[in-house]
Amino acid sequence: MLLEAVYHRPKLNWSYAYDQETIHLRLRAKKGDLLQAFAFAGDKYMWDQSKELVPMRKLISDEMFDYWECAIKPTYRRLKYGFLLKSADREMWMTEDNFSPERPENPDRLFEYPFLNPADIFTVPEWVKDAVFYQIFPERFANGNPDNDPEDVLPWGGKPERHNFFGGDLQGVIDHIDHLSELGINAIYFTPVFEATTNHKYDTTDYMKIDPHFGDVDTMKKLVKACHEREIRVVLDAVFNHSGQAFAPFLDVLEKGEKSRYKDWFHIHQFPLDPTRGLPTYDTFSFEPIMPKLNTSNPETKQYLLNVAEFWIKEVGIDGWRLDVANEVDHQFWREFRKVVKKANPEAYILGEIWHESSPWLQGDQFDAVMNYPFTNAVIDFVIRQKMDAQSFANVIGQQISRYPQQASEVAFNLLDSHDTPRLLTLCDDNKDRMKLAALFQFTYMGTPCIYYGDEVGLDGGPDPDCRKCMEWRPEHQDQDLFDFYRKLIALRKELAPLRTGTIRFLEAEKGGSKLAYERKLGGESAIVLLNNDDAGQTFEIDTTDKLWLDKISGKGYTAADGKLMVRLPAYGYAILTSER
Amino acid sequence: MLLEAVYHRPKLNWSYAYDQETIHLRLRAKKGDLLQAFAFAGDKYMWDQSKELVPMRKLISDEMFDYWECAIKPTYRRLKYGFLLKSADREMWMTEDNFSPERPENPDRLFEYPFLNPADIFTVPEWVKDAVFYQIFPERFANGNPDNDPEDVLPWGGKPERHNFFGGDLQGVIDHIDHLSELGINAIYFTPVFEATTNHKYDTTDYMKIDPHFGDVDTMKKLVKACHEREIRVVLDAVFNHSGQAFAPFLDVLEKGEKSRYKDWFHIHQFPLDPTRGLPTYDTFSFEPIMPKLNTSNPETKQYLLNVAEFWIKEVGIDGWRLDVANEVDHQFWREFRKVVKKANPEAYILGEIWHESSPWLQGDQFDAVMNYPFTNAVIDFVIRQKMDAQSFANVIGQQISRYPQQASEVAFNLLDSHDTPRLLTLCDDNKDRMKLAALFQFTYMGTPCIYYGDEVGLDGGPDPDCRKCMEWRPEHQDQDLFDFYRKLIALRKELAPLRTGTIRFLEAEKGGSKLAYERKLGGESAIVLLNNDDAGQTFEIDTTDKLWLDKISGKGYTAADGKLMVRLPAYGYAILTSER
Repeated sequence: MLLEAVYHRPKLNWSYAYDQETIHLRLRAKKGDLLQAFAFAGDKYMWDQSKELVPMRKLISDEMFDYWECAIKPTYRRLKYGFLLKSADREMWMTEDNFSPERPENPDRLFEYPFLNPADIFTVPEWVKDAVFYQIFPERFANGNPDNDPEDVLPWGGKPERHNFFGGDLQGVIDHIDHLSELGINAIYFTPVFEATTNHKYDTTDYMKIDPHFGDVDTMKKLVKACHEREIRVVLDAVFNHSGQAFAPFLDVLEKGEKSRYKDWFHIHQFPLDPTRGLPTYDTFSFEPIMPKLNTSNPETKQYLLNVAEFWIKEVGIDGWRLDVANEVDHQFWREFRKVVKKANPEAYILGEIWHESSPWLQGDQFDAVMNYPFTNAVIDFVIRQKMDAQSFANVIGQQISRYPQQASEVAFNLLDSHDTPRLLTLCDDNKDRMKLAALFQFTYMGTPCIYYGDEVGLDGGPDPDCRKCMEWRPEHQDQDLFDFYRKLIALRKELAPLRTGTIRFLEAEKGGSKLAYERKLGGESAIVLLNNDDAGQTFEIDTTDKLWLDKISGKGYTAADGKLMVRLPAYGYAILTSER
Repeated sequence: MLLEAVYHRPKLNWSYAYDQETIHLRLRAKKGDLLQAFAFAGDKYMWDQSKELVPMRKLISDEMFDYWECAIKPTYRRLKYGFLLKSADREMWMTEDNFSPERPENPDRLFEYPFLNPADIFTVPEWVKDAVFYQIFPERFANGNPDNDPEDVLPWGGKPERHNFFGGDLQGVIDHIDHLSELGINAIYFTPVFEATTNHKYDTTDYMKIDPHFGDVDTMKKLVKACHEREIRVVLDAVFNHSGQAFAPFLDVLEKGEKSRYKDWFHIHQFPLDPTRGLPTYDTFSFEPIMPKLNTSNPETKQYLLNVAEFWIKEVGIDGWRLDVANEVDHQFWREFRKVVKKANPEAYILGEIWHESSPWLQGDQFDAVMNYPFTNAVIDFVIRQKMDAQSFANVIGQQISRYPQQASEVAFNLLDSHDTPRLLTLCDDNKDRMKLAALFQFTYMGTPCIYYGDEVGLDGGPDPDCRKCMEWRPEHQDQDLFDFYRKLIALRKELAPLRTGTIRFLEAEKGGSKLAYERKLGGESAIVLLNNDDAGQTFEIDTTDKLWLDKISGKGYTAADGKLMVRLPAYGYAILTSER
C-alpha cells in the first residue's frame, strides 16, 4: 500500500454535502492498490453507540489513482470519520494526523464534517441536469429586422472579420425558434446582447440596454417569452470583469481623470489615462485598452453590477447568467452575486467561464458550473486528434470527475466548441464521422451538452473570427444528415435518464486501444455506450447477465450468449445499448 | 521520483495571496525525493516575454513529505504556472493535467492564479503577531465586587463543581490588572461574560447584557478602558452556535410551540418541545437540552447575532471575538460575520474554536485563526507524555505549518491548556521542568501564545470542572519561580522579533532523539532554540559560522569552535541563543 498516494482532506471534492441529509466522502489511493476501503464514521457526541464501518465503492480512476466514495446520512447531521484501507498485504487506519495499523481508540483525531448546515449545501438547478444547450452568437445567427442593422452591415454569409457586421439580431432568433424546437434543445446561451461597440459585444457600453443593433428590451422580453412558451430556458452573458471603453463611468474617468467620481470603479495606476499607447496605465482584460477591468470590490460598482444581474432576471425573466472571464473577478463579488441571483430566481443557472481547474468556484457559494473546456480538450485529443488512447481518455475523464462534488459534474457545461475556439467540424478536418463520435460522447456523458449554433447543419470555421460565420439558413446548404443525428442524440438523451444523471463506469478502455465502452446507470436503469474510435471495424465484447439488447441509435437488436454481448461496429461506429428486459 | 506523492492544487495552502502583491506557491513531494524544485511562471497574456523559472525552497517537512515554497510578485497580478521537479534520477514538468519530461509548449494547461484581487487577500490583524494572550474564566479569576455575587456563592478557593459559584467578576479583573501588566501579557481572551445561568456562561440568556454576577455594561467599559490604557487588547467569547434555554426567543418557542414567531430561530423537528426527556426534539449543542442550536441561516436570527457582534465592538471597544463551537455554524454566517466585524474594527481578531483541521475557515473570508489544539496535542505528546520522539514532533509541527497559508500560522492561537482541558501543570504530573519546556516551545514558535489564568503561578487542576479552580492570589501560595519564568519568556518574545514571525528550520530532531534544536529567522536576525527533553544532560552540536553566542535565558555566553557551537544542557534544560555579531 503506497501511503504517499493516499489523500483525503475535509471539504472540496473530498467531503461534501450532496443534499440536505447526505454527506459524500471520497478517498484517493494508488491505482489498483486497495482491495477494499471503508469510512469509519459516527457522531462525535455519541461515538461508541454510533460508530460504524461504511463500505466505499470505487467511484472512478485516473492515470495514477483510484477514487473511492461512500454516501452517509448521519442521524444528527454531524460526522467524525476516518478510513480503513485494505490492500493485498496490509490494513491501515487513516486519521487526520496519520496512518496506523491500529484502529483509533477514540474519535478525537479523526476527520470531521462538523454539521450539515442547509445554508452550506451546494444546490444546483434541477432543470440543468435535463437541459440541452444551444449557444447563439447573436450578430451571426439571423437577421430578423433589417431596420436595426449597423450602418456598415455586409450581406449575410460574408467572410467574418474581427470588426465586421452582418446584422444578426434578436428578432432573428424569434423568427427561427422553430428550428431550435425541431432540433430539440431546451436552453439557449446567448453571448452578450447589451450595448457595445464590437460585433461580439464583450466591451459593454451600457449593461441596462440591449444593443440597438440587436433590438431593445421589448424584443428581449418577446424572445424570452417565445422561448419559455416552448420550455426553452435563456441564459445571458454577464461581462463583469471589465467594461467597454465607451461605458459611461470609464468615459468620465477618461475625461476628468483623478477628479472623476468614477475613478474607483476601475483599477487605475496612473493619471491621466492614455489608452492608446503601449501598456495601459489601468488594469484591463489581457492588455486590451478598450476593456478596462472593473473594480468589483468598490461598493458602488458592485451594487451597480448586482442590480444589473437582478434586473434582467426580474424584468425579462432570464434563467441564468454565463460569467465572462469569471476567474479574474474576486470571490467576494461572486458570493454576493449568487445571493442576489438565487434570491431573484432560485432556479437560475450560474455558469462561469473558467478554462482550468475550478474547485475554488464550485463549492456552493459561487457558481453552479463552469464551461468545461478540460472536457473539450479531452474529447478533441481522443476522438479528433487521436493523441490519446482509450485508456488515457478514460483516465482524464476520471480525473475530471474526481475533482468536483457530484452535483457540479451533474450540471457541468460540456461544450466541444464555442465562439472562442475553432468549430467542431473544422477541428475534425471536415470528417463527419469523427464529429459524430465526439458529439456522441458529449450527449451520453454527465453534465449538460451544448451545441454551438450551426454545428448541427454542418457550419465550419477556424479560430476566431472564422468560427463566427453567419448561420446557414439555405436548406440546400444545410447538412440534413448531421441535423438528424443531433436531433436523435437529443431525443435519446431525453428518453434515457441514465445518460443524464447516471453513474459512469468504463467497461472497455484499453492501453493503446481505440474502443471505448461505458455504462451509465441510474437506479435499476442503465445504458451501455460503445464508441469505435478507429478507421477500421472492431468488435466489442461486453460481459452481461442480460440477453436481449437494443441499439437505440440504429434500432438493431443484439443477443448475448454465454454472458457475453458481442457487437461489431464499423469504422467510427457507435451504439447506445439498452437491455430489453 | 515518486509522482504519486507530488501534490499541488490551486488555492488553500497551495497557492494563495500573502499580501497585495505576493503569491505563495507550494508543492508537496516525497520526503527527500527532490533535489530542486522550480515554479515555471508568467503572465498568460504575455507568456513568452514573462515566463521564468523561480527557485523554490524547502519550507518544511513532515513524516512522509517535503513542502517546497516560493513567493512571486507578478507585475500584472496574474499568474499561470507549472513546476519543474528535479530528483537524482530525472526531471519532470508538472501541469494541471499531468507530469511530463517535456517542458510545456504553451501555458494553456498550466495551473492558474487568475488575478490577485485585493478583496480576496487573507489579511490578519498585525497586532496579533506580537500578542501574548491570557485566558480568563471570569467566575474564577477574582471577586472584585461581593455585592453582585450569586446567592449561593461559596468561599473563594473551594472545590470547583459543575454547578457551583465563587463570585468572580469583571471588577476582579480590573483590580488585578497590575498582575497582568507585571507578567507582560498584552491581550486577554475572556470566556463568556453575557447573562447565562451556568458558571461558565456558555448557555446565553441575553447576548446584549453582561451577566449581573459579573457586572454590567459600564463595568465592561471600565475594564476595556483599563486594559487599553495598558495596551492590553480584549477578546470576548461569542457563543453563536447555540443559545441557552432561558434565551427569550427559546422561552417563547417553549411556551407557544408552533405559534411562536421565533420558531425559525432554532432547528425544531417536532412540537411541542420537551427538553426534559431523552433526546431533544430540536437540534442542540451535543445532546445538551439547555443549549438549543441557533438557526443562523434564518435572516432574523442572523441579523440579531450580527448586531450583537457589532454592538460590543462599537459600544465597548473590544478587539476581537473568539467563536464557540465555530465549526458547527454555517460558513455563510461566518462570511457575513467577518464583514460586519471587520467593518466595525478592521483590526479585530476573529478566532474560531475548531479542534481539527481548519483550512475551510482559514481562507481569508471567515476566521483569522483557530484555537490550535493540534499544536497543543503535539507539544503534550512530545514534552509531557513523551509518546513522540524529536523527529516525530518536528514532523507533526511541519504538517501543521504545511496545511495553512503563512498568515494563518502567524496568528494561530497556540494554547497548552484551557477551561476545556486539564491544566498544564497537572498534565505534567506537577513536574515544573516539563511544564517549562512546553511553554518554552510555545513562546518560541510562530503564532500567538496564550496562558490560561493561574498557570503562571502554579495553579493545577484535572479535567473540567477541576481546571476551573479559583485563581490563587495569596502570595505565599503563588509559585514565584514559575511567574518569573513566564515573565522572562514574554519579555524575550517581545525583544526577539524572529521568535514571533521568523521562519522555522529544525536543526536537530533525530529519530528516537530527545534533543530539539531549531532556528527562527527573520531577515538578517535569528535565534536558535534548544530543548533537552530528557531526564539526563545532553550536548547539542550546532553548525554555525558565527563565533560568539549568548543564551538569552541564562545570560550565559558560548563560543563556537571549528564552525561548531557546543552547548551542554542539563535534564530538561533549554536555551534561546542569539549570535553576538
